[in-house]
Amino acid sequence: MKEQVHDAARRAGLAATVLATLPRSAKDAALQSAADALVAATDAVLAANAQDVEIARGDGTPEHVIDRLALDPARVAAVAQGLRDVAALPDPVGEIVRGSTLPNGLRMQQIRVPIGVIAMIYEGRPNVTADAAGICLKSGNAVLLRGSSSASHSNAAIIAVMRDAIASAGVPADAIQIIAADDRSSAQHLMQARGLVDLVIPRGGAGLIEAVVEQSTVPVIETGVGNCHVYVDADADLDMALAIVLNSKTDRTSVCNAAESLLVHKAVADVFVPRVVAALHDAGVKVHGDATFVAADPQVLAATDDDYATEFLALEISAAVVESLDDAVAHIRRFSSHHTEAIVTSSLSAAQAFAVGVDAAAVMVNASTRFTDGAELGFGAEIGISTQKLHARGPMGLPEMTTTTYVVTGSGHTR
Amino acid sequence: MKEQVHDAARRAGLAATVLATLPRSAKDAALQSAADALVAATDAVLAANAQDVEIARGDGTPEHVIDRLALDPARVAAVAQGLRDVAALPDPVGEIVRGSTLPNGLRMQQIRVPIGVIAMIYEGRPNVTADAAGICLKSGNAVLLRGSSSASHSNAAIIAVMRDAIASAGVPADAIQIIAADDRSSAQHLMQARGLVDLVIPRGGAGLIEAVVEQSTVPVIETGVGNCHVYVDADADLDMALAIVLNSKTDRTSVCNAAESLLVHKAVADVFVPRVVAALHDAGVKVHGDATFVAADPQVLAATDDDYATEFLALEISAAVVESLDDAVAHIRRFSSHHTEAIVTSSLSAAQAFAVGVDAAAVMVNASTRFTDGAELGFGAEIGISTQKLHARGPMGLPEMTTTTYVVTGSGHTR
Repeated sequence: MKEQVHDAARRAGLAATVLATLPRSAKDAALQSAADALVAATDAVLAANAQDVEIARGDGTPEHVIDRLALDPARVAAVAQGLRDVAALPDPVGEIVRGSTLPNGLRMQQIRVPIGVIAMIYEGRPNVTADAAGICLKSGNAVLLRGSSSASHSNAAIIAVMRDAIASAGVPADAIQIIAADDRSSAQHLMQARGLVDLVIPRGGAGLIEAVVEQSTVPVIETGVGNCHVYVDADADLDMALAIVLNSKTDRTSVCNAAESLLVHKAVADVFVPRVVAALHDAGVKVHGDATFVAADPQVLAATDDDYATEFLALEISAAVVESLDDAVAHIRRFSSHHTEAIVTSSLSAAQAFAVGVDAAAVMVNASTRFTDGAELGFGAEIGISTQKLHARGPMGLPEMTTTTYVVTGSGHTR
Repeated sequence: MKEQVHDAARRAGLAATVLATLPRSAKDAALQSAADALVAATDAVLAANAQDVEIARGDGTPEHVIDRLALDPARVAAVAQGLRDVAALPDPVGEIVRGSTLPNGLRMQQIRVPIGVIAMIYEGRPNVTADAAGICLKSGNAVLLRGSSSASHSNAAIIAVMRDAIASAGVPADAIQIIAADDRSSAQHLMQARGLVDLVIPRGGAGLIEAVVEQSTVPVIETGVGNCHVYVDADADLDMALAIVLNSKTDRTSVCNAAESLLVHKAVADVFVPRVVAALHDAGVKVHGDATFVAADPQVLAATDDDYATEFLALEISAAVVESLDDAVAHIRRFSSHHTEAIVTSSLSAAQAFAVGVDAAAVMVNASTRFTDGAELGFGAEIGISTQKLHARGPMGLPEMTTTTYVVTGSGHTR
């Protein structure tokens, strides 16, 4: 298995050297060609997907998980449209990030270049496969896709179609490769292929991400675990707070930018806690609260530290009353996954102190946590939401999939 | 030892939350105060340094290594001036990297913030200790300094003075801490203090950096291994080429941006190889060359693949003739450490192909490899030269010591 993974990585490296010099027009043509081919191959993709769904049903997989796995013609068309959307985005490669002429006449430019070979290790839906391939291709990177075995037939069908299509458009097929998921060791070989793989991006649950961080010798960008808080300040508009809590928690529960915990300043607790508990219960949300929340409604469950640390990804929320904004910040720093933290307040100083204090990829002031999203923030496509501090933090679009080279031009300059 | 390291990291974390909100004026005042204090404490620092030098002499350390370890009043004054220079640089914290008002009225800003707690694991001279502390303080980060045991008395004396000085200027002393180097395990505990340390920067030889990359669970920025090449193209001005080769190799041999390998296009080999070999020999440089080089001068040693892979850091260079620019690029991709690669050419297309092809942090066109340097490129202070692709590539100045937070402000926005 190790040799297979290393061979694939070497082929990806060769493809990457070609990709690095392709003009935007060639990459966009390949993406359009892949989109056309996917739509044309809808029947084949759906047949492969039906195999995955059948195996999942046989394994007793819950229906809501199968719903995320299952494709239909509209979903295939959406995947193809995603590739066209990536083609329409500006090419990050070649952007001059910084440039100057130095006092000695040297001309210095810092230029965006592709990273090289990216390994994606991910769980979940087949559409991630095509999205990741499209984003990597557009940013000039070769990609090794190691998806979930539960989607293996769908992923193989999608990538077979895309490889043929980009090859016919003059882009090396090996720019996009599947790494077989049937052998669990393939992920390990990928993340230890130092010198062959430039970056590993794990995308999935906390367990997957932790395993990659522990074992990888290749640089990693962690994505997506979101234990996001909404803090309702003493100076909050309580109608606004109620709307933001409900939207952050219930708009979509399975996503990393959903709220998982609610903090309420004691000055507004008497009024707000009963109101928000009633509204959350009406929305079908189970509440794990502290003594004040339990006192407000006997249906509230007594919260443990584990509850405050949990990313529920379900209609479930932890909740507590805090003595002050500082206490709210301290609570968040203790339990946060550094993804998104929201404050509802009309106080400018409270908003500023919260933003500096919570140490998060994104801070929402009087807005739902759900806005931490590449599309919502206007970045176009997104390959994930980084929760680490290095390289990229928050939604990762095309520029985050590049590095830079300093090119310094002289006329015989020596020191 | 683990508990000591973790305690230090926790105290650093508390100091970091204070540092993150300090205005530039407070940080600059602390740096000036530390500079004044170091000059005032010159005698104490030199006494501590004399202990290190005595131990090194007793261990039979070579004189050129002792020369780098030894301080004198002028060197202490230079260290203090380095801190004043950092104080004079712009504060990266609070810079708004990107900002826009979205179609729905949300205002989005991407703001530079400190990374948090930085661990430096380094070898070498005591001046690195003060430099690193100054750069981290200015960029709002707390730093854990794990230097070489050979400089432990000097490092302890410098940091004791700096801690007192910054504390008297109102900055928490724990923003700057020494991690004892007498127990080798302290480095390991630092690089595995996930959640307590945000970034590890190893600075030293290839062995140190490899060990950190293998063992760290904290994100790492690799620095400083430079197997740098000078490629003399078919279209090179050969006088210029000779000057650039000599300067790149001999200006300073112990630095990462010194040249370690020379490639010559076959079209100019007849003329250039004998000339450059004679000049290198005149400068006292030992040459490990291929058959053409050996044929040019019997003093040239036959080069092995190991020679082409070696960062000599001495008056020693590997050399080969290549068939083409593509061959030069292929050779460099095989042996490079992705630091700095230079081309001497009058051909625009050759310069462009080389820059895109070699996959380096910095490419010099008709200039010495020695220009890959924060001060030379106008960045001011530099904490190291990153040879990895993530987060920072090339000389790392103050902005590279920060991450960002997206702050999104609405008026009750929900999705």
